[in-house]
Amino acid sequence: MKTVQVSLPGRSYDILIGSGLLADFPKLLRDRKTARRLFLVSNPAVHELYGGTLMRGLADSGFRVSEILIPDGESHKTLRTVEQIYGQLVSGGADRSSALVALGGGVTGDIAGFAAATFMRGIPYIQIPTTVVAQVDSSVGGKTGVNHGLAKNMVGSFWQPSLVCIDPETLLSLPQREFQSGLYEVFKYGLIRDAGFFDWLNASLEEIQARNAPVMQRLIRRCCQIKAEVTARDERESDLRRILNLGHTFGHGLESAVRFEGVTHGEAIAYGMMAAAHLSHWRTGLSRESRDRAVQSIREIGPLPAIDAVPTSRVVEAMKRDKKRRNQRTVVVLLAAIGITEIRDDIPDRDLARAWDQVKQLK
Amino acid sequence: MKTVQVSLPGRSYDILIGSGLLADFPKLLRDRKTARRLFLVSNPAVHELYGGTLMRGLADSGFRVSEILIPDGESHKTLRTVEQIYGQLVSGGADRSSALVALGGGVTGDIAGFAAATFMRGIPYIQIPTTVVAQVDSSVGGKTGVNHGLAKNMVGSFWQPSLVCIDPETLLSLPQREFQSGLYEVFKYGLIRDAGFFDWLNASLEEIQARNAPVMQRLIRRCCQIKAEVTARDERESDLRRILNLGHTFGHGLESAVRFEGVTHGEAIAYGMMAAAHLSHWRTGLSRESRDRAVQSIREIGPLPAIDAVPTSRVVEAMKRDKKRRNQRTVVVLLAAIGITEIRDDIPDRDLARAWDQVKQLK
Repeated sequence: MKTVQVSLPGRSYDILIGSGLLADFPKLLRDRKTARRLFLVSNPAVHELYGGTLMRGLADSGFRVSEILIPDGESHKTLRTVEQIYGQLVSGGADRSSALVALGGGVTGDIAGFAAATFMRGIPYIQIPTTVVAQVDSSVGGKTGVNHGLAKNMVGSFWQPSLVCIDPETLLSLPQREFQSGLYEVFKYGLIRDAGFFDWLNASLEEIQARNAPVMQRLIRRCCQIKAEVTARDERESDLRRILNLGHTFGHGLESAVRFEGVTHGEAIAYGMMAAAHLSHWRTGLSRESRDRAVQSIREIGPLPAIDAVPTSRVVEAMKRDKKRRNQRTVVVLLAAIGITEIRDDIPDRDLARAWDQVKQLK
Repeated sequence: MKTVQVSLPGRSYDILIGSGLLADFPKLLRDRKTARRLFLVSNPAVHELYGGTLMRGLADSGFRVSEILIPDGESHKTLRTVEQIYGQLVSGGADRSSALVALGGGVTGDIAGFAAATFMRGIPYIQIPTTVVAQVDSSVGGKTGVNHGLAKNMVGSFWQPSLVCIDPETLLSLPQREFQSGLYEVFKYGLIRDAGFFDWLNASLEEIQARNAPVMQRLIRRCCQIKAEVTARDERESDLRRILNLGHTFGHGLESAVRFEGVTHGEAIAYGMMAAAHLSHWRTGLSRESRDRAVQSIREIGPLPAIDAVPTSRVVEAMKRDKKRRNQRTVVVLLAAIGITEIRDDIPDRDLARAWDQVKQLK
């Protein structure tokens, strides 16, 4: 088991990473100073895979634990689902000494984290992410929230987990498309912060695709280290943390334009990062070679859904509703080189559209 | 104008108190480093009194300001109303550099504060409280939230305002019952923290009832000082801040038992403080004289609605759903003397019921 520490004043926490960790979780938790009354939040599919064993293990370790099942999918990442959790917390007698445990992917973690952030003005929560995206990204950093209409993550809080527990073995049960979607976020870390890691990812792609356990553990650890370092330095996204949004302004625009249908979050980010690479070549001096290498690496991860039928104007229009905007300006993360970012808010819509047109024909 | 500073690491803010301050607010705000895009949240009645002038003043001072009207009353302190605010923020093009201004009583401030806490994971908000309760209590300290079903403030966040602006002249338009309800919270500050202030309040009751401007200003300032001191030392209610809940465990139980109908929050707290005084005499050694003085002072503030038809068992049962509970124990604030509190979690239900029975016959 490896431990990555996230240092935040008064709210530091550990990320534990290890194959088979899920089976040890009840015992691990018992050895920590933590709530004895737990509410395990997951969706039916994940609960079917891991929930029963986990509930029994926790009960055997002396915890009182109730399950809260929420529907799966981005379309259920709403205040309605959060209210359902509040209702079950109230009827289960939750108080401020209770804790939530989020078992599942990013959607489950974001929803459960927001419920924890806002129930009784904040109770603790623990993340047990079971997808690539959740393990390398959404479970770390304390961003919680839900969508409002078509505006993604428009409602939310910063609320840090008290523990993150990652078992790479849970990835073995992931559908291929979901696994692949997560890899785009993995490559993002290399692009924004670590050219050496980016090289290693490209060299290891075959073993990664085979979900080789030691390789996945190393991959997750490096991603968590970068995310932990960036979020510890800038918890509330005033500056440094924004680099994590490479590809996200475009990506959110696409997700919004297709109403979150037919394109996964990771796939949208993949398109977004390729658009950002093109824009970077024009605007920050990213070399042609680096641009092509970034685009090629992303394409080699696997096939992407066709998006050429989505009008570019609709994507650019949706980008203007992005919550990273400040003073009515669209903020995009660009690359000055592989591993080096540049944040810009001076890109006119026509250049955003031009960059998007470069990638929307790709598959 | 008097200024009370609330010191919190990284989130300190000023409370400005002065007669006629509302008229100066736009100019005051212009001189501070603050958002230029504002959303003024109030209810129709308050907006009718002050909203138009304020909107014009803000526009004249160079702010872009939109109004968001929400329905009045505790029954509308719900996620539905918060969602209505989100909707208007989105359609008004709000971004993270926008700010909310909450103009009104405690309900408006709590709802608008929670919307600010959770929109885009937190945007700034300014409190302009216009009722006694809001001026001496709810606008200071960063507690925001809404009710969930019958569970009061069950959903919420700690989110500090960036400025609180109090004009005692707004109290002149307050209905008598609402004004009086606020005074119970004022007397609470004396009871929990400042025996000299308690004496002064009793001696000044006639001028207070007449809403004499200099007296009200002094009263508000002292209450804000106490609240600021307590919340600065303990932002998240782990310990000291709980003393502010004198009368509130009983009071919330009553409000819940009558489904928030027929009894104002302040009146419920009045009954709760009298019950706490009786319980204190039995449990903490509060002298008979101090107990009687506390009860008598509260009764002299004005008539209270009859509650003898509300079964004691229902109030005690509702107290068990209070969010101040920890590890399934009901927490109550008692008085060891006037100005000195003692927090207890070892009071059996039968004693809570007995104390309640002592006061429920009073009018």
